Amino acid sequence: MKLYDDAIAPTPRRVRMFLAEKGLDIPRVPVVIGKGEHLAPDYAARVPSCRVPALELDDGTIICESVAICRYIEALHPEPNLMGRDPLEQARIEMVQRRMEFELLLPFAHAFRHSHPKMAALEVQVPAFADVQRVQAEKRLTVLEADLARQGFVAGDRFTIADITAFTTLAFFPRLVGITIDERYPSVQRWMGEVASRPSAAA
Amino acid sequence: MKLYDDAIAPTPRRVRMFLAEKGLDIPRVPVVIGKGEHLAPDYAARVPSCRVPALELDDGTIICESVAICRYIEALHPEPNLMGRDPLEQARIEMVQRRMEFELLLPFAHAFRHSHPKMAALEVQVPAFADVQRVQAEKRLTVLEADLARQGFVAGDRFTIADITAFTTLAFFPRLVGITIDERYPSVQRWMGEVASRPSAAA
Repeated sequence: MKLYDDAIAPTPRRVRMFLAEKGLDIPRVPVVIGKGEHLAPDYAARVPSCRVPALELDDGTIICESVAICRYIEALHPEPNLMGRDPLEQARIEMVQRRMEFELLLPFAHAFRHSHPKMAALEVQVPAFADVQRVQAEKRLTVLEADLARQGFVAGDRFTIADITAFTTLAFFPRLVGITIDERYPSVQRWMGEVASRPSAAA
Repeated sequence: MKLYDDAIAPTPRRVRMFLAEKGLDIPRVPVVIGKGEHLAPDYAARVPSCRVPALELDDGTIICESVAICRYIEALHPEPNLMGRDPLEQARIEMVQRRMEFELLLPFAHAFRHSHPKMAALEVQVPAFADVQRVQAEKRLTVLEADLARQGFVAGDRFTIADITAFTTLAFFPRLVGITIDERYPSVQRWMGEVASRPSAAA
């Protein structure tokens, strides 16, 4: 098994953090998105969708999509549990995890892609859409602040995959889109500090 | 157990189709999004996120997010299987299911929300973004056409949750954004016809 990985982008970091929380060390093959290596013919031959990260099994099978990779790892290495221990807890964690993707990660990612000069070559940028999404991202931060004021972690009282999605989003995008996690968000700050101090945050 | 449901929107239809494929008949409570019933105080008191669909368990627990609801149902009623029988198949189906969400459903939904007069009251519309997303949706249709030319279903050789996501997307959005699934997409047409003839498509 090996992991095609990029050191900068937030999505590969989700999988690295997940693996580190599991105490797993899977060989990694760097694919530098910033240099366009994910679009090179040799990578496309292995991973037709050209996405990073991608998990390659020993028989050459490719699994893309961070959450699908994480769920596969969770099935093979159930402890420590990060996606729920029974159907109900799994459903609740997935609900929150998906909210972090659709309501937090996507607005931040859209604001970045549609405004940042570095993305101009990759995306037909619509600056007005970046503005709308920046507002959306700030609104969602306020909801997250309220959640984290009454519970320790994003999905409740323990660390889960939902924390990984939210943390990797907020560790990467805000400064790139002109949003600061300042004193308006004391509980987000508290939680960011706690997650950043976990060994997995260095992955 | 009961399901808060809207008869028009494509996302509640995903859950209804999933339940129908399982042969399950869960009591439904209509929440008419078009009339703003999801924003009414009595619904917000039960479902704080105001999302539809929502599954309410007998103890009042709420599960939102269609895929989280489906995974919970799949755990309780494993047959017929719609999300994979082992960790590897589960990962591959989830990979494709997520692609249908992020690469097909989202571009169509964005094109609709940012261009359709009916959405003007709900969304700060950015028509230029709708144009970009319409192009993206057509590109992704071409990829889907190639997939369905070599395999019977979206995720391979059997019907899965990925078909439900793609079908409910393509049964709803194209005409609303000026895209026609015409003779450029014969395999998509073939597959749409087959899925439409399943009893669950009437759910």
